[in-house]
Amino acid sequence: MPEIAFYNDSFVDINAKVVPIQERAHQFGDGIYEVIRVYNGRPFYMDEHLHRLQKSAEAIELQLPYTLNQIENLCLEGLERSTLKEAEIYIQISRGIYTRQHHFPEPSCAVFTMTIKNARVIPENKRVNGMKVLTTEDDRWKNCYIKSLNLLPNVMAKQKAKVNGCDEAVFHDDGIVKEGSSTNVFTVKNGILHTYPALNGILHGITRSIVLKLASETGIEVVEEPFNLDFLYEADEVFITSTSMEVMPVSQVDEIEFSTVRPVTDKLIEQFQALKDDVITGTKE
Amino acid sequence: MPEIAFYNDSFVDINAKVVPIQERAHQFGDGIYEVIRVYNGRPFYMDEHLHRLQKSAEAIELQLPYTLNQIENLCLEGLERSTLKEAEIYIQISRGIYTRQHHFPEPSCAVFTMTIKNARVIPENKRVNGMKVLTTEDDRWKNCYIKSLNLLPNVMAKQKAKVNGCDEAVFHDDGIVKEGSSTNVFTVKNGILHTYPALNGILHGITRSIVLKLASETGIEVVEEPFNLDFLYEADEVFITSTSMEVMPVSQVDEIEFSTVRPVTDKLIEQFQALKDDVITGTKE
Repeated sequence: MPEIAFYNDSFVDINAKVVPIQERAHQFGDGIYEVIRVYNGRPFYMDEHLHRLQKSAEAIELQLPYTLNQIENLCLEGLERSTLKEAEIYIQISRGIYTRQHHFPEPSCAVFTMTIKNARVIPENKRVNGMKVLTTEDDRWKNCYIKSLNLLPNVMAKQKAKVNGCDEAVFHDDGIVKEGSSTNVFTVKNGILHTYPALNGILHGITRSIVLKLASETGIEVVEEPFNLDFLYEADEVFITSTSMEVMPVSQVDEIEFSTVRPVTDKLIEQFQALKDDVITGTKE
Repeated sequence: MPEIAFYNDSFVDINAKVVPIQERAHQFGDGIYEVIRVYNGRPFYMDEHLHRLQKSAEAIELQLPYTLNQIENLCLEGLERSTLKEAEIYIQISRGIYTRQHHFPEPSCAVFTMTIKNARVIPENKRVNGMKVLTTEDDRWKNCYIKSLNLLPNVMAKQKAKVNGCDEAVFHDDGIVKEGSSTNVFTVKNGILHTYPALNGILHGITRSIVLKLASETGIEVVEEPFNLDFLYEADEVFITSTSMEVMPVSQVDEIEFSTVRPVTDKLIEQFQALKDDVITGTKE
């Protein structure tokens, strides 16, 4: 049984029926989550993910049912049980099981959910050829820095991308480019890297912050300021980042095609790969 | 077993663990819902709720797993099994069970959930004394006319009301009064009834539309136009409506107290009661 799950207090089969109807994730999306990539059996930037989990929990006044240390140990135990080497750990905390009412249950009864699955493998030609994206009006709530389970607008945007032959949808708010439905968005113009600032309106991606750090280490100038759709269309290079996509070139935004010559993107992909290699070979824990 | 549930294809115990982790309601809030009040064993305005369910489903491109007729029959069968007379029927449709990914599962695999529970009884003194409400910035997504499972902002607002000794939180968007976290909001000024128009930014409440119809039948002038917080504070009467609260007077908004003399609200409560009586006595099916 490579793919496994954990619900509340026990390891369970990933398809097991373990959730009652009146779970607040099921009825309100009242919870938060994280996705952690595992390379060669080793979780990548796990501390950063767990700290963001705690930040999300604080933002929705949710008391975690386990300490971060305990969650880390559950992830590691799960990984071992799964025997998976290339994996994705999905963890979710909801406000628990309670008779349906909007306000919080008392006392706190939060529930921890985890799945450990095979990593989604991005076809290598995508990394070479780049992905097609479309832009769409941002209709999400105002606190997208919280990694919450309220993902219906993201679902709708991703589906819109799919039916239009694209891999991702990029949200813009009245023309200001924010982020993708499950990625952050970067542009390169005249050698300078641009991305929307880490305000409440976007998720503060772990891969996003790794890329910003790699860029500054390499002497690539970074501007974290809002930019509009025209600026996106006129960029020299565009790429998106996420835990599962890593650093992914973009070949087309709406009707605008981009050059396959992308020195800054390629440099950052190379550096990101070096970070992964450190983990894969166990050079860096 | 008075309180019961239904999941996918079977009646189950209301606390039964029937939902797998990778249900899209559980992981994305990817679904819609309705709450139907039952008086004396008879569902109130069921057709209207089922049609709104269908409208919500269309808005999120969700194919219902049952026809509205089948859903109605499941509700009626559930009611009979429960033997409850004063009840709330909760129905929810999610996009189903599928390995976690944002875009839609193919083919469609939507799942129907229902619970039938004792109705929450509003203490009679609330209907006489009125409820206290506070106002809070609307941070929700832009499509609140869809009765979706993405309810985290509503949860946070209701909790904020509760910890501040209030019964409800009213959302305002940059000062424009929209609706409550689980209710619609009405004000009366100089005998004229005001409420936010049925645009995409609010839920088009069934009780809201009943009240508008009752008002126009009684010759009360209705204005469906946006109004701001000052207009709310300076109103002669304020009330909120919902399936479970029916027509509920408001005694206080933030620091502003309202008179207990409220002829328009009282008239509408009386008319609403007459509608209920028709259902309770079986005069009107």
